[in-house]
Amino acid sequence: MSAGYPKGRRRRAEIVEAASAKFASVGYRNASMVQIAADCGVSRMGLAHHFPTKEALLAAVLEERDRVNGELFFTGFDATADGLDYFSRLARLVEHNATVPELVSLYAVLSVEAADPAHPAHTYFVDRYTHIRRDIRDALEELHARGLVRPGTSIAGAESDLIALIDGLQVQWLLDPTSVDMGARFRQRLSEMLLVEVP
Amino acid sequence: MSAGYPKGRRRRAEIVEAASAKFASVGYRNASMVQIAADCGVSRMGLAHHFPTKEALLAAVLEERDRVNGELFFTGFDATADGLDYFSRLARLVEHNATVPELVSLYAVLSVEAADPAHPAHTYFVDRYTHIRRDIRDALEELHARGLVRPGTSIAGAESDLIALIDGLQVQWLLDPTSVDMGARFRQRLSEMLLVEVP
Repeated sequence: MSAGYPKGRRRRAEIVEAASAKFASVGYRNASMVQIAADCGVSRMGLAHHFPTKEALLAAVLEERDRVNGELFFTGFDATADGLDYFSRLARLVEHNATVPELVSLYAVLSVEAADPAHPAHTYFVDRYTHIRRDIRDALEELHARGLVRPGTSIAGAESDLIALIDGLQVQWLLDPTSVDMGARFRQRLSEMLLVEVP
Repeated sequence: MSAGYPKGRRRRAEIVEAASAKFASVGYRNASMVQIAADCGVSRMGLAHHFPTKEALLAAVLEERDRVNGELFFTGFDATADGLDYFSRLARLVEHNATVPELVSLYAVLSVEAADPAHPAHTYFVDRYTHIRRDIRDALEELHARGLVRPGTSIAGAESDLIALIDGLQVQWLLDPTSVDMGARFRQRLSEMLLVEVP
């Protein structure tokens, strides 16, 4: 596979980058392989060599974005062992998102489009939310066990609310970046729930 | 205008219904006028008679949805005069949404697509969020003035959080309706913020 050689790897990365930008702006369904090939200056045959189908390209885009976010924010985390550390990573991710509107748009567009069970990323997004809810629940339970959750705060089901808050703030922020400070709102919410400041 | 006669009005309503379903499933950009005409059994000329452009059809869809939700939930409300009444209407709307997935999908798809300033519904959605945030802020301030906001609850900026919660829960619910009870979560959040139960 030429993808193993530097030139092939670089070309592959350029295609993933172009596809990511296209999916973020027009969605997966509306994106054309011909246009993506043109955007990164490869032939349709060259594109097919790396990604025989649009589904394969979508999978590569999501895998790459998860890899980057994982390396930047979630290497070695364990929400069951240190809930505060987990929320600190999550809060920094929300703050970082305000610097990468295209990436925020990518997830916002795809997650809604993928509600259709026939969408190739449907299972990916269902699983993604299941995992994030579990991590947030683990973190809240760990903090609760240490007596760090504010009295009167119900943590049952709060994992859905916190991820909803992040997603919903993104909708307002994408429409008008001056309308809301996503990182500040998320930290404010955490400070209302916890007795300890999130670093 | 034939739209003033019963038959023309009925035909127009059928077109708006078909367009709403199409926008909800594939988005505005991806929807074709030819397909919408076919979906409701009118000719392309017949469609053009009622809606000369796709933009005009989108405007009619949004206007119709706002009219129905307005009639069902928001006739005669005044958030500045009775915040509890406003939240009661909003909570009932969130509960109602769980019975109309197509409508929830319509707003979720369009609001994200409309982040692009060139999208014909961009201004509509920016204004929509501005108005909803103002109404929620008015309602919270009215309740705060009556001493009905729970001590320790910061209402500054909470209008962005509450609408984000509603929008974000929709993303999870559209992906997997069994994953979250939108109405219950929204009422739970209100109960954490307020000293009075929302009817």
